[in-house]
Amino acid sequence: MELHALDLYIKSLIKEAGHLIRNSLATELVIEAKSNANDLVTNMDKEIEQFFISRIRRDFPGHRVFGEEGFGDVIENLDGTVWILDPIDGTMNFIHQKSNFAISLGIYENGIGKLGYIYDVVNDNLYHAVNGEGAYCNDERLLPLKETSLDKSIVGINATWVTPNRYIRHEDSIRLIQDVRGTRSYGSAALELAYLATGRIDAYLSMRLSPWDIAGGMVIAKEVGAIATNFKDEPANLLKQDSFIAANPSVHSKILTEYIHVK
Amino acid sequence: MELHALDLYIKSLIKEAGHLIRNSLATELVIEAKSNANDLVTNMDKEIEQFFISRIRRDFPGHRVFGEEGFGDVIENLDGTVWILDPIDGTMNFIHQKSNFAISLGIYENGIGKLGYIYDVVNDNLYHAVNGEGAYCNDERLLPLKETSLDKSIVGINATWVTPNRYIRHEDSIRLIQDVRGTRSYGSAALELAYLATGRIDAYLSMRLSPWDIAGGMVIAKEVGAIATNFKDEPANLLKQDSFIAANPSVHSKILTEYIHVK
Repeated sequence: MELHALDLYIKSLIKEAGHLIRNSLATELVIEAKSNANDLVTNMDKEIEQFFISRIRRDFPGHRVFGEEGFGDVIENLDGTVWILDPIDGTMNFIHQKSNFAISLGIYENGIGKLGYIYDVVNDNLYHAVNGEGAYCNDERLLPLKETSLDKSIVGINATWVTPNRYIRHEDSIRLIQDVRGTRSYGSAALELAYLATGRIDAYLSMRLSPWDIAGGMVIAKEVGAIATNFKDEPANLLKQDSFIAANPSVHSKILTEYIHVK
Repeated sequence: MELHALDLYIKSLIKEAGHLIRNSLATELVIEAKSNANDLVTNMDKEIEQFFISRIRRDFPGHRVFGEEGFGDVIENLDGTVWILDPIDGTMNFIHQKSNFAISLGIYENGIGKLGYIYDVVNDNLYHAVNGEGAYCNDERLLPLKETSLDKSIVGINATWVTPNRYIRHEDSIRLIQDVRGTRSYGSAALELAYLATGRIDAYLSMRLSPWDIAGGMVIAKEVGAIATNFKDEPANLLKQDSFIAANPSVHSKILTEYIHVK
């Protein structure tokens, strides 16, 4: 299928999934813990991933799916067309807040991000991008990121990463939050990437994110000029959990070189 | 004026102020720094405070106004009827995000919170309460807070407060963020109180807040059963800047006694 036709197909699919999620908000969720007591999954995460997969299998049998809940394919490379999906990014918010979560989806062809989607379900805001053709929130085109400086930046970072941890030297991340204008934490990587793309925050970083957390947002963020890498300044990892920073180009390199020291 | 009539008057006034703010979003702001480079004020903070004060002076000449921008009265006690107003709570978000800010207003009679308002201007959500008559978001009544436990709680706390600071022992606040389910930071005390009142977060704390940051939200939060104090477990300070915690009653005392140690 041609890219613009696929884009229309996916928008419709995402809206349908959003409808299913909104309808579920009034019902009781079945909640389970995964890797630890705060790593949660609900019946809806699973149902929405299965909803996507059944449609993809039917309509795009040659495509592969890399989904958070594991109903898709085992993905060890990005050959061909791969859908990288988080059916509900920000599950804790979904459970606890019934808002501030998103469907996140990126379509990659031989490793190149072609289409990106972040759907803020409750507010009905669909952020999306076609590679090389700009990013949008609903029908409104997002402007290229403006030049800024670190002392005027708002950074999306969870408090955890300025406390002793096994990933980075927290003494340096403490300096970071002292040197920026402010910090925020919203609890959904996908939404924080959408906020980066709209200029509401100037950088977003986390010690460990999975491909489905970032795949959709990276296509969108790239279209407005943001840079996304891991903490070694390598291309962000779309196969395995890794560190991640996406930022306004004015501050990306400065944050990485002066404030992030991987242990 | 009788309380319910005053409530209707204020709702209308707040909506008018919100309209002025929304209209300003497309215009260039005049931004100044106050106590430090990141303590910002705009022409709109000032204009909106003056808008409120001109109406209050005209229609309620016996009332006093305690406003963030200082156009109101010098307030050294809460005798009589006092309007405690933050025309734009979350000014940094207002400037940087054009969202995630609020008008915050509390009406106190001889120190007792009678009416409370938090207006999320961009999303057009008005949280409000009349003392003893429950709290609402728009027309929807907010439910009493449910019993919870610390390990299932989401806490609103800025990353700053888990780094070395002159107010509290950060070793203890680090334990707090390790023991809770998650932390969030939204950059507007008023909105974080609204989120507490709707159960989206279970506690919100900050080392230093001013009366206008909390006056409206306290009336609302109290109606759903939240407890608001300073870090010494004294009634929250409505005359001076002070520490502040508002929380679900299941966790308020535990957070204060086990995790907060004022220096």
